[in-house]
Amino acid sequence: MRRSSIIGIVVLCLVFGIAYSLYIPVYAGQDRVVKVSDQTKACIGCHSMVTPGIVSDWENSSHAKITPQEARQKPSIKRMVSSENIPQALSTVAVGCYECHGLNKKRHKDNFPHNGFDINVVVSPNDCATCHSEEAREYSNSKKAHAVKNLIANPVYHQLVDASLGIMDYKGGKITSSKPTEKTKHETCLGCHGTKVEVKGMKTLKTSMGDMKVPELTNWPNASVGRENPDGSLGSCSSCHPRHSFSMEIARKPYTCAQCHLDPDVPAWNVYKESKHGNIYFSKWHEWDLKSPDWTIGRDFKAPTCATCHNSQVLSSDGQLVARRTHDFGSRLWVRLFGLIYSHPQPVSGNTTILKNKEGLPLPTSLTGEMAPQGLISAEEQGRRLKEMKQICQSCHSTEWVAGHFLKLDNTIKETNAMTLTATKLMLDVWKAGLEGQTNLFDETIERMWVRQWLFYANSIRYASAMTGAPDYATFKNGWWSMTETMQQMNDWYKLKEKTGKK
Amino acid sequence: MRRSSIIGIVVLCLVFGIAYSLYIPVYAGQDRVVKVSDQTKACIGCHSMVTPGIVSDWENSSHAKITPQEARQKPSIKRMVSSENIPQALSTVAVGCYECHGLNKKRHKDNFPHNGFDINVVVSPNDCATCHSEEAREYSNSKKAHAVKNLIANPVYHQLVDASLGIMDYKGGKITSSKPTEKTKHETCLGCHGTKVEVKGMKTLKTSMGDMKVPELTNWPNASVGRENPDGSLGSCSSCHPRHSFSMEIARKPYTCAQCHLDPDVPAWNVYKESKHGNIYFSKWHEWDLKSPDWTIGRDFKAPTCATCHNSQVLSSDGQLVARRTHDFGSRLWVRLFGLIYSHPQPVSGNTTILKNKEGLPLPTSLTGEMAPQGLISAEEQGRRLKEMKQICQSCHSTEWVAGHFLKLDNTIKETNAMTLTATKLMLDVWKAGLEGQTNLFDETIERMWVRQWLFYANSIRYASAMTGAPDYATFKNGWWSMTETMQQMNDWYKLKEKTGKK
Amino acid sequence: MRRSSIIGIVVLCLVFGIAYSLYIPVYAGQDRVVKVSDQTKACIGCHSMVTPGIVSDWENSSHAKITPQEARQKPSIKRMVSSENIPQALSTVAVGCYECHGLNKKRHKDNFPHNGFDINVVVSPNDCATCHSEEAREYSNSKKAHAVKNLIANPVYHQLVDASLGIMDYKGGKITSSKPTEKTKHETCLGCHGTKVEVKGMKTLKTSMGDMKVPELTNWPNASVGRENPDGSLGSCSSCHPRHSFSMEIARKPYTCAQCHLDPDVPAWNVYKESKHGNIYFSKWHEWDLKSPDWTIGRDFKAPTCATCHNSQVLSSDGQLVARRTHDFGSRLWVRLFGLIYSHPQPVSGNTTILKNKEGLPLPTSLTGEMAPQGLISAEEQGRRLKEMKQICQSCHSTEWVAGHFLKLDNTIKETNAMTLTATKLMLDVWKAGLEGQTNLFDETIERMWVRQWLFYANSIRYASAMTGAPDYATFKNGWWSMTETMQQMNDWYKLKEKTGKK
Repeated sequence: MRRSSIIGIVVLCLVFGIAYSLYIPVYAGQDRVVKVSDQTKACIGCHSMVTPGIVSDWENSSHAKITPQEARQKPSIKRMVSSENIPQALSTVAVGCYECHGLNKKRHKDNFPHNGFDINVVVSPNDCATCHSEEAREYSNSKKAHAVKNLIANPVYHQLVDASLGIMDYKGGKITSSKPTEKTKHETCLGCHGTKVEVKGMKTLKTSMGDMKVPELTNWPNASVGRENPDGSLGSCSSCHPRHSFSMEIARKPYTCAQCHLDPDVPAWNVYKESKHGNIYFSKWHEWDLKSPDWTIGRDFKAPTCATCHNSQVLSSDGQLVARRTHDFGSRLWVRLFGLIYSHPQPVSGNTTILKNKEGLPLPTSLTGEMAPQGLISAEEQGRRLKEMKQICQSCHSTEWVAGHFLKLDNTIKETNAMTLTATKLMLDVWKAGLEGQTNLFDETIERMWVRQWLFYANSIRYASAMTGAPDYATFKNGWWSMTETMQQMNDWYKLKEKTGKK
Repeated sequence: MRRSSIIGIVVLCLVFGIAYSLYIPVYAGQDRVVKVSDQTKACIGCHSMVTPGIVSDWENSSHAKITPQEARQKPSIKRMVSSENIPQALSTVAVGCYECHGLNKKRHKDNFPHNGFDINVVVSPNDCATCHSEEAREYSNSKKAHAVKNLIANPVYHQLVDASLGIMDYKGGKITSSKPTEKTKHETCLGCHGTKVEVKGMKTLKTSMGDMKVPELTNWPNASVGRENPDGSLGSCSSCHPRHSFSMEIARKPYTCAQCHLDPDVPAWNVYKESKHGNIYFSKWHEWDLKSPDWTIGRDFKAPTCATCHNSQVLSSDGQLVARRTHDFGSRLWVRLFGLIYSHPQPVSGNTTILKNKEGLPLPTSLTGEMAPQGLISAEEQGRRLKEMKQICQSCHSTEWVAGHFLKLDNTIKETNAMTLTATKLMLDVWKAGLEGQTNLFDETIERMWVRQWLFYANSIRYASAMTGAPDYATFKNGWWSMTETMQQMNDWYKLKEKTGKK
Repeated sequence: MRRSSIIGIVVLCLVFGIAYSLYIPVYAGQDRVVKVSDQTKACIGCHSMVTPGIVSDWENSSHAKITPQEARQKPSIKRMVSSENIPQALSTVAVGCYECHGLNKKRHKDNFPHNGFDINVVVSPNDCATCHSEEAREYSNSKKAHAVKNLIANPVYHQLVDASLGIMDYKGGKITSSKPTEKTKHETCLGCHGTKVEVKGMKTLKTSMGDMKVPELTNWPNASVGRENPDGSLGSCSSCHPRHSFSMEIARKPYTCAQCHLDPDVPAWNVYKESKHGNIYFSKWHEWDLKSPDWTIGRDFKAPTCATCHNSQVLSSDGQLVARRTHDFGSRLWVRLFGLIYSHPQPVSGNTTILKNKEGLPLPTSLTGEMAPQGLISAEEQGRRLKEMKQICQSCHSTEWVAGHFLKLDNTIKETNAMTLTATKLMLDVWKAGLEGQTNLFDETIERMWVRQWLFYANSIRYASAMTGAPDYATFKNGWWSMTETMQQMNDWYKLKEKTGKK
């Protein structure tokens, strides 16, 4: 960038910075003014012109409306700021651009000089921990935080990625497959799991403010749950609290979880939509309060969203705590319903690459369904968590109702695991007969039918069971009908190949 | 339960009962106080603590805001209470916990002593009939009320249940299938059709209030349309007016029907969502009134939901009745589009097990499409119902527009029935060739393809036609594309098996 | 119709006409009265009784609330009426029934005498052009306006219609297929593309006002984007601004586009719903203003709907124009992602029947992916359009973020086109081996698998990439998983047929 452009930009920013410093934000519904730091004023000076959407989003956020110091003074049940020792300089101003993008500069390999300030491109959970330390700590132990590694660094499981996404060619009557590209992994599996964001160097961008030197990042943009950040931390709070709104309301609404928990492999959202709970939510949300920090059953909402059962602090109408807020997303769950071959007890650690099944592979079960001897939570811990979950259900349902519900789920897990074992036994025979190879467990005809059995159909049935709704997801929509039909097709294919030979 | 626990609970309940008796509910938007019975006050005393969600739901319902006596005094067009002779004791208090859970005790095999009161676990349509007799009577004749029997007691049709849900095993190169378990039927087919709820005995539950003896119910919980109740009645009003809100608004919103009327087998909701009517509903519902009893076209809503065409009382803007409210759900329909092999005239009775096709089976048509000689409504009755439906359409559409629309539907029924017949003829040849058995009509490869033809594809096409929207459901999304593709696959499979032999 | 009926109707209309002329509409939120023409008063006189829904819709529309003359006086950024010379008689009254249905009578073959007035049944874009000339002109050049011809008059592409929709019969062990009927095309492909509406003669209808003679129209009703109207014009404004609401709000909400842009072939809506943008829209729309003509980022909305990126006028918070309103729907797009075999640069003209690929067929690419030498926009024009689109993105996203996003899309187009070529090469070998015929490219087993590769799977992946969301649509839901699985099934089928022979 030429010196003159830099001077031009700095002058522009100064002009807007001054303009902004005269600007007194008076927010809708309140006449209080929150002090904004000089650095943030300078940011807004330019960015209210170049990226007005971001600035407007922030202006409507809690971060613009209350200082951390004031937020700390709220009663604990309404307090959203868990850190006790917030640096003084940050504590008494609005949480603005610079307060977040200027933190922990030394850890940030993506820090770069930007119009006179040292700015991090990526704000990470470790930065948010300045005020939200408890949330960041909980999150760091969740499977979400480890979502990239759990998929890609698993020597078995990453084969599924290769089999699904590899570009194929056809030559001389033969199909060949290459390894998937980074960009395609980024838009598919890693679109939810997250990508590794690293600094490759600097590059010059042409912007509306002239040429700018910025860090060149790998696999960017990505705001997914397991993102590996340039400061070494894991995750992206923005996945659920999108961008500069930092909204709790959005995270509590089911559309957020729907970004990734979709059919056919994780049909949580699809099942919720068609469940009784979903029906009541979609019919009545406009009369509820999804913003209230002390979220109270009956007063603020009358049917659960995803967050109610899995994450949020929930109170009963007499102010008693029904469930403690948690950002360790599996921590209220006793079984893991999806994502692997058999349903199994939740893993102890969010890092599942440390599991070992009886064949020595990093999987929670063996191919024939035996649980890994270590690394999964105990029956006692399962009982404790189930009891905690029941507590939430019982705010609206009788003890017997709830007991009956979970007995059905136990049975569903047992039966779907049995159906997966049946498919596995047939596949083992196919392998033994030499009709398919075992180099990649997921890439040939019978193997793909086997994958659909557990990844699509068994999962759908278990979700429909767990969320007591959407019986069609347990029956005809990727449910039992598909599972028994595919089982028959597997058998048909096997018998045919026995007659006609491998190729 | 030990005596001391009982005393403890009773004391607690008394304390809260007294507390509640001092509580004067002043509801949002009205300063009127409705008298609550002493029994209900006692219920609320404990339940506002143990199940606060239920209590809060009720407090916001009409049942808490108006007595039956007052409700009866409304002009007929706005009246929601159809019974003329409501017992005096019930008539002058809010319709609270005890008023519903304490009714018709002798008929209720699920009645049990509960903290000094005799309580029914399950509130049934027969109980609701105390105030809503007309609705209960209409409902009792609908296919919904008979939904369990119509599926399970049908000697042909229950085979589809067995074929779809039976757990399979693989041994010695062979697939075998067992009968589905009750729990799995409960979560799949009977999740919508309803279950038979019977009292098996008493059991002791550990609750937050100590040990409690309660009836042990089979197949519980379930709130589906055909539920067979412990008092002998059929159905569950809660299916559409969920639980303690008793909401008419929720029943009128399309999410309620979506609980069961889902793709791939009954894609009413999916088609509605993508139709012009659905578009207008989702775009504008926030400006409409879905709560108004005298539901008026143009004033209260500007595009129909499911309830508008199928159930609700609908008025024109000059107060004329366009359609009478009905809880006999097929009674405005002249043809039956889904659920069976061929589309056919609506059955006369909601109990379809009394039908007999020419082969003597309880089906509305023969396997090759001839209508059952009796039990289906006459052409005259069809004409009367079609005229009634057109009346609703013509509130917004010209006579010619409406005529053109239904001509297309007639053609669609004819063509989809013809395609089903084509698939049937091929299947008959497969049977004749001995390539598949006829013990169960729904469980082998060609049979399953045949089932998909009518249960998924023909149904989707007919819904898209009937609701004049979502052309993709008639084309590529389980529509014509799938129907012609599957027909070709059936033929392919047959030709291949002719060459390679049965197994 | 007998003379006495006519007199009866005229009397009725006069009575109601007079009644209506005394009626002074005072609309919610405004006390201003708009003058209604005498003709329109007469229309409303009867139609407030016979089609109250339409009248009520109109009463709430802008057409009833402001005259064209007043609308012209708004500042250009807020002005919705683009024509400069509106006839005086129309300019000073509300835009009522007669103002639209009584225009350009000579061009309208559907004009007919109706209770003393000459009325057109179909209001066309050419009629709307009286006030909205710029919008009509833009629209006439769009692919939407030519949607019927582009499908049906294309000698290759209409074969897909025939293959998908032809009724099949089974006789003597053989499947045969007939041409699809007009009614079925109308409800499937032409449900979105539009139908040709012609006057076949007159017919007599029985209506609630007695017998009436009306024009008999072919393929009616239909309100789809490419409708060929009886006045020779193309399109239907009502497709997106439904019926008598003429609503801009509805057109801006994503449900409108969802009517046609659905999975599996055009999953724009499905991807949007599960994207971050969709999440924010569904969570927060109730706090936004979708009605504001000068639609401002940050002030009126905080995440885009379909219309934001593709059509609407968009302003930044300082009042600068970010994007100009356009009704030429492809004009902001540089590539075409869906609908044809390979993704390719946008065509120059909305009429795509004038394209010629190297084999001389009216397609944008050859069967093996080479671009047509003429008729597609140049690389320069592509660059200009991409830059315009980026301008919108950059209102909320940094320059680098946006650049990274579109690099991924480029890669996705390249890879999905490569996968389509692989499938094509295999199909060419199948043809060479004589295993399938080439008369219709879309109707046999391997051909249908090939169609799914590009029409369902490649399209889904490209949409998920373009809209930076819904990774499941790029992975498991009609995405890469299905594309690589189907490729393998194609190969399996080919190898099997090589062994077992053609039939």
